[in-house]
Amino acid sequence: MTPFINDHFLLQNHSAQRLYHEYAANEPIFDYHCHLVPQDLANNRQYKNLFEIWLEGDHYKWRAMRLHGTEERYCTGDAEPFEKFKAFAATVPHTLRNPLYHWTHLELARYFDIQELLNAESAPHIWENANAQLANESHSTWGILDKFQVKFIGTTDDPTDSLEHHQALSSSACPAKVAPSFRPDKAFFAENIDTWNAYMDNLSEVSGTQIQSLDDLKAALKSRIDFFDSVGCKASDHGLLRCPNRIADDSEANASFTKARNGDALSNDELEGYVGNLLASLGEQYSEKGWVMQLHLGALRNVNTALYEQLGTDIGCDSITDELQIPSLAKLLGELSSRNGLPKTILYNLNPTENYTFATMCGNFFEAGLKGKVHFGTGWWFCDQWEGMNWQINALSNLGLLSHFLGMLTDSRSLMSYPRHEYFRRLLCQLLGSDMEQGVIPNDFNLVGGMVKNICYSNASNYFNH
Amino acid sequence: MTPFINDHFLLQNHSAQRLYHEYAANEPIFDYHCHLVPQDLANNRQYKNLFEIWLEGDHYKWRAMRLHGTEERYCTGDAEPFEKFKAFAATVPHTLRNPLYHWTHLELARYFDIQELLNAESAPHIWENANAQLANESHSTWGILDKFQVKFIGTTDDPTDSLEHHQALSSSACPAKVAPSFRPDKAFFAENIDTWNAYMDNLSEVSGTQIQSLDDLKAALKSRIDFFDSVGCKASDHGLLRCPNRIADDSEANASFTKARNGDALSNDELEGYVGNLLASLGEQYSEKGWVMQLHLGALRNVNTALYEQLGTDIGCDSITDELQIPSLAKLLGELSSRNGLPKTILYNLNPTENYTFATMCGNFFEAGLKGKVHFGTGWWFCDQWEGMNWQINALSNLGLLSHFLGMLTDSRSLMSYPRHEYFRRLLCQLLGSDMEQGVIPNDFNLVGGMVKNICYSNASNYFNH
Amino acid sequence: MTPFINDHFLLQNHSAQRLYHEYAANEPIFDYHCHLVPQDLANNRQYKNLFEIWLEGDHYKWRAMRLHGTEERYCTGDAEPFEKFKAFAATVPHTLRNPLYHWTHLELARYFDIQELLNAESAPHIWENANAQLANESHSTWGILDKFQVKFIGTTDDPTDSLEHHQALSSSACPAKVAPSFRPDKAFFAENIDTWNAYMDNLSEVSGTQIQSLDDLKAALKSRIDFFDSVGCKASDHGLLRCPNRIADDSEANASFTKARNGDALSNDELEGYVGNLLASLGEQYSEKGWVMQLHLGALRNVNTALYEQLGTDIGCDSITDELQIPSLAKLLGELSSRNGLPKTILYNLNPTENYTFATMCGNFFEAGLKGKVHFGTGWWFCDQWEGMNWQINALSNLGLLSHFLGMLTDSRSLMSYPRHEYFRRLLCQLLGSDMEQGVIPNDFNLVGGMVKNICYSNASNYFNH
Repeated sequence: MTPFINDHFLLQNHSAQRLYHEYAANEPIFDYHCHLVPQDLANNRQYKNLFEIWLEGDHYKWRAMRLHGTEERYCTGDAEPFEKFKAFAATVPHTLRNPLYHWTHLELARYFDIQELLNAESAPHIWENANAQLANESHSTWGILDKFQVKFIGTTDDPTDSLEHHQALSSSACPAKVAPSFRPDKAFFAENIDTWNAYMDNLSEVSGTQIQSLDDLKAALKSRIDFFDSVGCKASDHGLLRCPNRIADDSEANASFTKARNGDALSNDELEGYVGNLLASLGEQYSEKGWVMQLHLGALRNVNTALYEQLGTDIGCDSITDELQIPSLAKLLGELSSRNGLPKTILYNLNPTENYTFATMCGNFFEAGLKGKVHFGTGWWFCDQWEGMNWQINALSNLGLLSHFLGMLTDSRSLMSYPRHEYFRRLLCQLLGSDMEQGVIPNDFNLVGGMVKNICYSNASNYFNH
Repeated sequence: MTPFINDHFLLQNHSAQRLYHEYAANEPIFDYHCHLVPQDLANNRQYKNLFEIWLEGDHYKWRAMRLHGTEERYCTGDAEPFEKFKAFAATVPHTLRNPLYHWTHLELARYFDIQELLNAESAPHIWENANAQLANESHSTWGILDKFQVKFIGTTDDPTDSLEHHQALSSSACPAKVAPSFRPDKAFFAENIDTWNAYMDNLSEVSGTQIQSLDDLKAALKSRIDFFDSVGCKASDHGLLRCPNRIADDSEANASFTKARNGDALSNDELEGYVGNLLASLGEQYSEKGWVMQLHLGALRNVNTALYEQLGTDIGCDSITDELQIPSLAKLLGELSSRNGLPKTILYNLNPTENYTFATMCGNFFEAGLKGKVHFGTGWWFCDQWEGMNWQINALSNLGLLSHFLGMLTDSRSLMSYPRHEYFRRLLCQLLGSDMEQGVIPNDFNLVGGMVKNICYSNASNYFNH
Repeated sequence: MTPFINDHFLLQNHSAQRLYHEYAANEPIFDYHCHLVPQDLANNRQYKNLFEIWLEGDHYKWRAMRLHGTEERYCTGDAEPFEKFKAFAATVPHTLRNPLYHWTHLELARYFDIQELLNAESAPHIWENANAQLANESHSTWGILDKFQVKFIGTTDDPTDSLEHHQALSSSACPAKVAPSFRPDKAFFAENIDTWNAYMDNLSEVSGTQIQSLDDLKAALKSRIDFFDSVGCKASDHGLLRCPNRIADDSEANASFTKARNGDALSNDELEGYVGNLLASLGEQYSEKGWVMQLHLGALRNVNTALYEQLGTDIGCDSITDELQIPSLAKLLGELSSRNGLPKTILYNLNPTENYTFATMCGNFFEAGLKGKVHFGTGWWFCDQWEGMNWQINALSNLGLLSHFLGMLTDSRSLMSYPRHEYFRRLLCQLLGSDMEQGVIPNDFNLVGGMVKNICYSNASNYFNH
């Protein structure tokens, strides 16, 4: 019987199969945004078992397990690794039509050549099989990067980070170039005055700048940007519920900053103005450096108040907001354009109903000689699945130029996620192959296949000046 | 020639046909939310003609007829039943691609074995044929419930209702268990101070509690909850444009209550705070009882001001709002979680652009041992059709666990609506059958067919502790 | 080899092909909303080259060219026509899956019988070929209108327009009836007090009414409405980010008007109230005339601040907003209904996530004898493509009566856009043909084909009392 993960998995017509196998499958991987741990990359971590490489820290899996009624101790709690694995395995058959079902079996097939479907019965056998393989050098961190032809990894790093692991990596035998990305979210989150002031103290120390004014903060961040740049950073990243709804002038923003730095809570309006001022200022700095500014917009975090109070952030209880994105996003990008300080930018929206608004927003900005200046990023987080990625590609196609699409990234915390590039490529080829067979685009493999290759690797590599 | 409503209606491949006929078709019906009239159920009403059972009170049909240019007297007015039926019949051919076209012919086929398409020409013949059959015992209310294997009906009832018909039903030969649902909307709608105060008076009388303070109101509602529970109620229901944007503390909410009880209009902000306080408090009570809390969010009612002034509510002039749902919904559910008072909950959104936000919201809450605590309800009202239900299932699949989906309900005011369960099941099987044939899910009828059966009946039955 | 644009282009099954060729292809065109230049129509303009008829003023093409990295001088700048054409041609292969790819090749095929794909290599040859044909009488403005069977054209005109070209057209040999549409946007935009006051002065002069009060303005507009009506106008048109969120009473609105007329800026709240008052008042006037009121809602214009300051409006840097549409739209239509002054209305939404909310809004209003009073307009601007038009048709089908749909319009500034009607018709037939083959609608060509014909021409012609 044909295994579930077979050569033609998700490729439902001949043109799609040809596009995938002849044009997409062999392209290397340019993973420009993920959450891999730099230390693991630098140390060429060897994982002890399937739990460590696969379940540790994966909030997608916790979420599914909880929805299946699993006790918390098998998710984030103190159950044994194998017990946790079995609890996950028992959940898997109930994830039919969820991306986890595809990811799980694609990952087992590609990392371990395991074709069995995972469930409570197959769990012990698969656990043994995979763990044995994980002891091999082929399954070390670098072995895995080599196998998947990963040429570039963009991690996600705080401005206060020492980047010691990135520095170590640059002179290592790691097959992928690993660059940091500059994510200064903590400099913005002045809602919690105490945490924010502690962060200012920390940043003062790391940057050697005593941060007492907004100018000090900007200088401190500039020095960290210079440092990140020297270590190979090519991009920044910002996570925001939405863009700030206004951009305060320097004098007002500085007053708000001083107020907050003195420990006084800001009003919503002051906070918005401050965030707007700082974000626009950073945008100009990114533009000067030639960096890419990434904006991740629309996540409403820590919705389960009870579990948040117990476990903290990033535990799988985040949501998509429906707040308005466009008026404030237009304000930020418009302001940067009029300052002649708009950097290369990638916009990611969490709410798929914003696909059309984001895709049209991208089309308003450009630079002669660039194949797209403001790009519409691939389906993010909850949208990183068959339906969500198709929607994003269709929106981009209809409202922009698919031809210059930057393609896939993993955004993952797990080294087991590289098959998501394969998944994306199959999806892309299925879409274009169907179009060819239906006469919607010309039946010309040079034309279409060339576009596929570019989307798989070259567009991103060129855009990030790799 | 194959009739329009044939065995394979809407089932476009072999796997879909097998899933439907072998796994779905014979499951009983668990209709956990509808607007059937308890009195008709208790009295085993026998309908005189097709108008009484089919058109009386059906605002879907009025809406279509008006869009076709039909005069109001054939909709809600004083035309003769047969004249109204003819006016509807003349509209039907113009409802191609509207759910009414499918419902109409599926209902004629299943209740009366009528295969003709309804239109102006066939109207008189169909009227005669159907009316003759309606005189049979097989077409009494109980006969119909028996034929469709309806095991459970959840009606929709005001807290002041005597539930006398539910009590009568419990000792009757009615083949379905009929339970009330607690819908206290009128206790919230303090925009119209006079109506609201009249309702408070009525509730005072029914509950035997003189309602002068918010505590009195909560006590009165609690006594009605106890009473509803004693008659078999398993669920509450709330219809809101959106959740309140804040939850006032008891002292503030009581002050607002007293102000309103004294006949003074509340400001928007006072009203929001009051509604938030009461809703959160009721949520805790539902949680204690083990009830399911249903939230129907997003209907903007009585949009046609002129017709509203003439005819009142529920006449087919309601709309979908695009107001933000998520910030306020997150606040309510988060607050209940932190009070350890979150009940089992079903969320229904009227605006399909909220499918992804609602489906992710559901995934933030859970309870060990429960197959889903906060469920994403099936496509509601304007979304209760082929496209809308597919969207809802796809959102649930991609962002949650389809496997535990509670499935279909009629939400109908008419006893002719039971084939909507068949319609839903065909849709579900068509979707999953296509997935199987395309290799998107394993070609395993035990796995997929088992899930189908659960979605048809067992999931809902288990969730409601039937 | 089959050319890309062949007889069955986009028609993927036999029923779709039969519907298109037997029912749709030969229907004439009723183009009730476009931006063609009345002077060109009156003068039977003969275009010198492909640039003049195709690229001049087409911001869709500029947008794509810029996203491809093209310098501005080849878009709106001073490059030679042939250079601009070549720059566009080089962009075209990169527009795969964008509507431009389909439009471009359909237009070349239908106007010049050119089957080659446009790209950098084919550009010179195609330029020569097309330019030669443009010299023929068959390719004069009137020749083109005759070839495409265009029976009616609704242009878009300011209230101060002299309509001299429309008057000239009425006694000309132009094969299409050309009617003005009344678009008084400039009377609303009081954000820029100086521009607005200058417009008031201009309107005073044209109308012969010294506009000093709101009543004066209404009288002046009424006199222009009477004049437009006398020249054959059947419709008005309004472009708004969204409807005003309130309707000020006459006394308040007049005070705001006077304030603005005196050169003082209005607060947002005053502006909203003024706009609401004026819009409602105009609605009543349209109703009296039997005109159609068109509302185009949701465009956020001039987002690229830098380019706007350089080039002004309508240069391809506009976007879709996600602002709420429904509360304010419900208010306007509800108010007009209660004044018994709701005109025939067509609603166009730019954000496709509003398809369901707009389609349900339309269903709330009706008039006995009219096949739809408030219509849901076809996919507009960014939504005027395969996906967007399918979504609009599906929303209309599921929530209203597709049977009475007003169908396609070009909304174009270019005379090369008439094949968009063919494109729309192929799409409609593909959708319905698939439905027929899948048993979703009856396999009855009289029933379905009749509906197709009506949507192509008669519905619009009847609605506009042509």
